[in-house]
Amino acid sequence: MAQVLYDFTAEPGNNELSVKEGETITITNQSIGGGWVEAQNSRGEVGLVPEDYIEVSYIVSVDVKSMEEMPADEALRCEFSHNSCSRNIYKCSIIVVHSAFFCACDLKTNNLVYTNLTSGAEDDEWDDEWDDMKSTGGYAESEAGESGALQRGGSHATSMKISLNKFPGFSKSGPELYLLCKQLVKGKDRLPIYMGEVGPVWSYPETQLDCVVADPKKGSKMYGLKSYIEYQVTPSTTNRPVNHRYKHFDWLYERLLEKFGSAIPIPSLPDKQVTGRFEEEFIKMRMERLQGWMTRMCRHPVISSSEVFQLFVTYKDEKDWKMGKRKAEKDETVGVMVFSTMEPEAPDLDLIEVEQKCEQFSRFTKSMDDGVKEILTVGHEHWKRCTGPLPKEYQRIGKAFQNLSSVFTSSGYQGESALTDAMTAAGKTYEEIAQLVAEQPRKDLHHVMETNNEYKGLLGCFPDTIGVHKAAIDKVKEGDKLVAASKITQQDKVTMAKRASTMSYALQAEMNHFHSNRIYDYNRVMQLYLEEQVKFYETIAEKLRQAHSQFTTM
Amino acid sequence: MAQVLYDFTAEPGNNELSVKEGETITITNQSIGGGWVEAQNSRGEVGLVPEDYIEVSYIVSVDVKSMEEMPADEALRCEFSHNSCSRNIYKCSIIVVHSAFFCACDLKTNNLVYTNLTSGAEDDEWDDEWDDMKSTGGYAESEAGESGALQRGGSHATSMKISLNKFPGFSKSGPELYLLCKQLVKGKDRLPIYMGEVGPVWSYPETQLDCVVADPKKGSKMYGLKSYIEYQVTPSTTNRPVNHRYKHFDWLYERLLEKFGSAIPIPSLPDKQVTGRFEEEFIKMRMERLQGWMTRMCRHPVISSSEVFQLFVTYKDEKDWKMGKRKAEKDETVGVMVFSTMEPEAPDLDLIEVEQKCEQFSRFTKSMDDGVKEILTVGHEHWKRCTGPLPKEYQRIGKAFQNLSSVFTSSGYQGESALTDAMTAAGKTYEEIAQLVAEQPRKDLHHVMETNNEYKGLLGCFPDTIGVHKAAIDKVKEGDKLVAASKITQQDKVTMAKRASTMSYALQAEMNHFHSNRIYDYNRVMQLYLEEQVKFYETIAEKLRQAHSQFTTM
Repeated sequence: MAQVLYDFTAEPGNNELSVKEGETITITNQSIGGGWVEAQNSRGEVGLVPEDYIEVSYIVSVDVKSMEEMPADEALRCEFSHNSCSRNIYKCSIIVVHSAFFCACDLKTNNLVYTNLTSGAEDDEWDDEWDDMKSTGGYAESEAGESGALQRGGSHATSMKISLNKFPGFSKSGPELYLLCKQLVKGKDRLPIYMGEVGPVWSYPETQLDCVVADPKKGSKMYGLKSYIEYQVTPSTTNRPVNHRYKHFDWLYERLLEKFGSAIPIPSLPDKQVTGRFEEEFIKMRMERLQGWMTRMCRHPVISSSEVFQLFVTYKDEKDWKMGKRKAEKDETVGVMVFSTMEPEAPDLDLIEVEQKCEQFSRFTKSMDDGVKEILTVGHEHWKRCTGPLPKEYQRIGKAFQNLSSVFTSSGYQGESALTDAMTAAGKTYEEIAQLVAEQPRKDLHHVMETNNEYKGLLGCFPDTIGVHKAAIDKVKEGDKLVAASKITQQDKVTMAKRASTMSYALQAEMNHFHSNRIYDYNRVMQLYLEEQVKFYETIAEKLRQAHSQFTTM
Repeated sequence: MAQVLYDFTAEPGNNELSVKEGETITITNQSIGGGWVEAQNSRGEVGLVPEDYIEVSYIVSVDVKSMEEMPADEALRCEFSHNSCSRNIYKCSIIVVHSAFFCACDLKTNNLVYTNLTSGAEDDEWDDEWDDMKSTGGYAESEAGESGALQRGGSHATSMKISLNKFPGFSKSGPELYLLCKQLVKGKDRLPIYMGEVGPVWSYPETQLDCVVADPKKGSKMYGLKSYIEYQVTPSTTNRPVNHRYKHFDWLYERLLEKFGSAIPIPSLPDKQVTGRFEEEFIKMRMERLQGWMTRMCRHPVISSSEVFQLFVTYKDEKDWKMGKRKAEKDETVGVMVFSTMEPEAPDLDLIEVEQKCEQFSRFTKSMDDGVKEILTVGHEHWKRCTGPLPKEYQRIGKAFQNLSSVFTSSGYQGESALTDAMTAAGKTYEEIAQLVAEQPRKDLHHVMETNNEYKGLLGCFPDTIGVHKAAIDKVKEGDKLVAASKITQQDKVTMAKRASTMSYALQAEMNHFHSNRIYDYNRVMQLYLEEQVKFYETIAEKLRQAHSQFTTM
């Protein structure tokens, strides 16, 4: 079974089948290839339909009940008959099986077991599938899982891929389009770069835009067959909420990446991975990360003031949104052409300086990437210990005290109760400490992990951004050779050097923006972390002080 | 080579060799058997000498240097050619090899690898051997070991074995000697039992004796060939110190066990096991445990006022000590006969009551033994975690913060130093926390472990003590049968019942003594533990508060 996403009109004589958005069809042959499947509509007509126009959502049945009762150490071998995939997974908290993915959280390793069942499946489908699940019953929750810590430091921060192949004749590897273009964009799209105290800086607005992502609500379409989550986005400028689904965020991300990706690292959206044990937890986590992403976008002066971003946060009605959407998709000042809108108000830099800056940023972002990854690894380990063996140990200490106390109660000796009451209280205190320890990572380490995950994502974008600059530098270096070979004119060569300088100013402005944000973010997250850590240790000390006061030596 | 411990005069015609205390002889044949070895003296005379009269101390050479340089994970296979023993041990902190034992602390498992090389070897030799080591070079210390936590919750609290076989015709299993003896001991040895608030109680002295065990000093004999440790024991009554070697404590223990063991559980001395990584640590630990043992003995009204104990703590000179020693060894009011000195000032109990009390104490001590062992197991686990993986993790967290901080320093961005200074400080704070965590068990858990180890030892003595009572009860139950078979008279039967009642009063007095001490000890150790725990968490909170104050958000 599949749902039709968009209208498709069959071309006569091609054995195609016309379908309408919302229609339900049956796939009769999935292995046609070339982006086509064979399907049958409700009237019995059979024909080819483009794969991209439909959404297949069948559920491979998995006996979840038997899985929950299965000892934690026993592996379940999942085999999927329609492709060669098979995996060993242990007792899991969430199992999601549908046409594109098999996904489960392995409680033994705390890793996400994740298998792409069909090689052609796109991540894009994921969000909708997740939204779908409640209605189709395609996931199960095990309440028993005790070590179901979140998958951390994981893969959700994937690097951005700059898509430049939208422009005919534009080589993926080169910034020549901008370096050699005849006319630069003028007008309201102009992006000035000023010289600030720290060097080149973007033009910052007087008041910073801020957005609140809140109030996730279930919406549904297709008569309830299909449900999804809609988030309320409220910008500080209008204070008027607009609704967006995850796929709308994804659309915005794609637009920003296309338009600004060569100059500004656009961090990926929170990934489509299952991170929560329960649906509510998953939605909360996704919302938190969407909020983080939006906040970072709002903080960026170039992005937050861009037309497409403004459309996203302030569209008036459905018509406004659809028109803006179409316009944004038609924007041609994208890819390296974004540099053509930039106007540094400073003298041109020579090539050596441009190259030095580029090298410096490259080194810095690489070593910061290592540092951030180290924190994520260590944090992940610590998270596991704090939610796994450590609280268990405190619990056992608490139980041991309480057990001895109950033995003492049976002594028959007079004047026993003062000691046994105190020992029981001490035992309970250690059980409380066990709980505090287990809950603590969500209160403090969580923020450290989230911030570093965000930075890992951001830093993963730099190699592409820096790559564009390096390519430009190489091109400028070839200048004399190109002139000699009459491929470009002397004037072209001068223009190229000037434009490489503009690119460098942009990179420097972006780095300065990055640094200032980084200093703020790390100060903030460390403050938050240490504050919660202090509270944590103080709470334990206070509990122990109370337990201590109950003991008396004669 | 062997040293002669005591004078031995050969019996003519038996191929024996006369030797004198302090003489050095050479073993020429160790496999004579029957407790004899063949030896040669310095004059070349050869003959048989009793094994017990000499002390063999040769060192099996082990290449300790290569062991220290060996990776921690690599096993060393030690093979001893003179018997079939071979063991895999990992990098170790202490290796002791001599005629009787191969002993090493395995740093990987934290277990003591301990092999009795000769099956006939007695633990008794151990102490002297240890004392010997410095001079003979039979041990080595690895300073590199990082996880050399003490062997905890281990075997040092072995149960006492009541030696009753000193008296001809006295059956090991039975208390008949006392139940049926013709005349009870009278006079100054009398041990009254009073009725106190909690039931039968011993007669407590007005001021409690206390002893300080301190100032371990190395002594030597045999021209420095043999060295030993002497402890200073100072009783609160005379405030005059006397000196004792471990073997003297052991002698005292044997006397107390013989004399009081049927009525009063006499805990074993701290065992002869290697518990410290370094000699000083070992001596300190042994002294601490000897102090604990002495304190417990001093607190016991019957033991502390006994002649042999008083001799041990207040002997005037060597002559006084030797005379007292001889007298104590000749004491015949030992074993079950100690009950003949006891005089309860209360009406006789009937057998049912006697039996009920005995059952109740048996149940209680058994379940307390379980409770204590649970605490030792849990504590041992916790100790390992606190000195092993946990501080390592905090260290890694600290390093990760510091590494990121040093990356930030390289940014070239202005106004970076406030953040990097703060992050470095935070990183160092976590390294300090690592150290605090690793050191904490010695400050708090140590006391919990020591107290519970003491109680484990004490509780291990109860089955024997209670066994004597059960045997007496069984005997009394047989009374009618024995009368019918004319094995005892009717009067004997009445006497037996009366004496079983006396034994029961003694057991109750002892239990009440045990309970009151237990309540005091557990209150005290829990107070101590929780006090140090509070300090620990407060110290960490304070350190983190300081680290927190260095961060500033703009």
